[in-house]
Amino acid sequence: MNDPTATMPAFPRVQPPEAQFAEEARARQGVLTKPTGALGRLEELSAWACSVQGRCPARVFAQPRVVIFAGDHGVARTAGTSAYPPEVTAQMVLNFLRGGAAVNVLAALARASVRVVDVSVDSDISYLTGLDHNVAAHRIRRSSGSINIENAMTLAESAAAIELGRSIADEEIDSGADLLIPGDMGIGNTTPAAALIGLLTNKDAAQVTGYGTGIDDVAWMRKAGAVRDAMRRGRPHLADPLTLLATVGGADLAAMVGLLLQSSVRRTPVILDGTISTACALVVDRIDIRAKSWWLSGHRSTEPAQSLALERLDLDPVVDYGLRLGEGTGALLALPIVNAAIATLADMATFGEAGVSDRR
Amino acid sequence: MNDPTATMPAFPRVQPPEAQFAEEARARQGVLTKPTGALGRLEELSAWACSVQGRCPARVFAQPRVVIFAGDHGVARTAGTSAYPPEVTAQMVLNFLRGGAAVNVLAALARASVRVVDVSVDSDISYLTGLDHNVAAHRIRRSSGSINIENAMTLAESAAAIELGRSIADEEIDSGADLLIPGDMGIGNTTPAAALIGLLTNKDAAQVTGYGTGIDDVAWMRKAGAVRDAMRRGRPHLADPLTLLATVGGADLAAMVGLLLQSSVRRTPVILDGTISTACALVVDRIDIRAKSWWLSGHRSTEPAQSLALERLDLDPVVDYGLRLGEGTGALLALPIVNAAIATLADMATFGEAGVSDRR
Repeated sequence: MNDPTATMPAFPRVQPPEAQFAEEARARQGVLTKPTGALGRLEELSAWACSVQGRCPARVFAQPRVVIFAGDHGVARTAGTSAYPPEVTAQMVLNFLRGGAAVNVLAALARASVRVVDVSVDSDISYLTGLDHNVAAHRIRRSSGSINIENAMTLAESAAAIELGRSIADEEIDSGADLLIPGDMGIGNTTPAAALIGLLTNKDAAQVTGYGTGIDDVAWMRKAGAVRDAMRRGRPHLADPLTLLATVGGADLAAMVGLLLQSSVRRTPVILDGTISTACALVVDRIDIRAKSWWLSGHRSTEPAQSLALERLDLDPVVDYGLRLGEGTGALLALPIVNAAIATLADMATFGEAGVSDRR
Repeated sequence: MNDPTATMPAFPRVQPPEAQFAEEARARQGVLTKPTGALGRLEELSAWACSVQGRCPARVFAQPRVVIFAGDHGVARTAGTSAYPPEVTAQMVLNFLRGGAAVNVLAALARASVRVVDVSVDSDISYLTGLDHNVAAHRIRRSSGSINIENAMTLAESAAAIELGRSIADEEIDSGADLLIPGDMGIGNTTPAAALIGLLTNKDAAQVTGYGTGIDDVAWMRKAGAVRDAMRRGRPHLADPLTLLATVGGADLAAMVGLLLQSSVRRTPVILDGTISTACALVVDRIDIRAKSWWLSGHRSTEPAQSLALERLDLDPVVDYGLRLGEGTGALLALPIVNAAIATLADMATFGEAGVSDRR
């Protein structure tokens, strides 16, 4: 590493959510006008919401915010691990800013807002001309390195990216976000995610390599080889998240790690999305095992690595529709379900209020 | 039967939805700014919506309407098949009218409206004093009979209930409803639903008897016995839906059958809810096999009978959260997902519009 003096940014210890509010939620679910337990998983989701909001009943999330971390990955270019050309990353950033992507449509329906952060897109910043220049104001580097043959970035860049994610979490929480959703955009980004998950769950490259955006079997072979090479390069750094991210992660992933960790430090709930955010969640889990009590898993992706990571994190996704898009889309499908759980707890009448007879 | 001259009301043949709009939807999904197939099941749901709306792209459902059919069942009183006392049915009708039930909360979130129809509540109509008297204006009878030992109703009542459901479907569709959700309320109503499903899927009483609102094992034994007795009484009438409903159904279920069939005749889509509406759907499927192409299954209930009925109907529920509440709640959880599917198809940019490169 070219800057051995860079160190992992220090974060305060995460404090767990307040369990007594989950208990209050369960007690209240028992007196609402419905059979005990009849709302199934919604009851458990309402208890989670109460614990992370520190009140019972919880309130429907009023300012959910999607933060999309965009970045390119050299491995897509050198090893051809994606079905799409790398220039799509920058094109999709523009699509996000213009409101044409799936994440925009789903965010509007779920009453969430979307922020895009160009962390490491492989494009001249002029691509944002006439749109929001601030999107790339904090860019860490132009593309991350090709992790099968070189480091994704320097240790200093890894630290800076984590700090970037932390500062974005702070900005969003300070401006009122009551729920954060980490989104991703980056051609090739399931390759570092698979490598990180393979390393942190102790699986083989073949077990964690998926078809991403829809590659064919030949490309899958190339991708699995790249994941295997990256895992070999990353294995010595398993105990050191800063170096692990610099070696086989990427600047966008490191920023997401910073956001996830800081959200938990700031007692702000998160709905994880797909493979990328679940890989980052696994890295955060190695840094502070309490962080995950602030998270829900929004959806189960078709990528095998994500399911392995979820199993390790003991998280059960809210929806399972075979999505494999990223951007935050899976988490946004879960959000109305979570809000429905909260609303039933908050707004239903109790047996006493409604004059309905309870069980005999 | 006390009026052997009553006959099954005649319905026009159901016409299938227009497949070409589903094809158009699939083609459009292929040019939206995302990898092909990356929206998983949402893509299939968007195609269904296009076919039942007869346009591509489809529009987000603007006037979804829940119709709750309320009715009591003598079997709850005579055989003790429910954990709750029968007076809860009328109490819950009041709760629906006052907006305190789960269905009200979930309908508000999903921007659906709720109508309650007292088809056969076991209560003096004065219980509605000061509220909406129209709710009971079309009541078919006061409670359905105890199907383990007597008929649920006469053939004339069965025909009248089916006609009631048909006229409600017509009223709702004529006043602009673009999606109907059949809801149910009735202490004991999973007993006739289980009997109907057992008969129509050729299963034993023990396979179709569930724990309903949360009965204990002793009550389950009583309930399974009642289902077995009802199935024995109903078996000779398997080929005759009118008589089957009169023998082992109930007025509320017959009304729901009428609504489901007429919705399909009127080319209006339906999201089925749980055990009751899926049992009624199975009866409708015996009357007109084309009807089901207008339906989605909203959710998988914890009742084993519902899963058997879904399998027979070849319907795959949109959500699976272990709900066992009825009222339309499961369908209302599915509705935001269906609308999300529609919105992505309608509102996302295409590769061409966004200047994003497609696969290489």
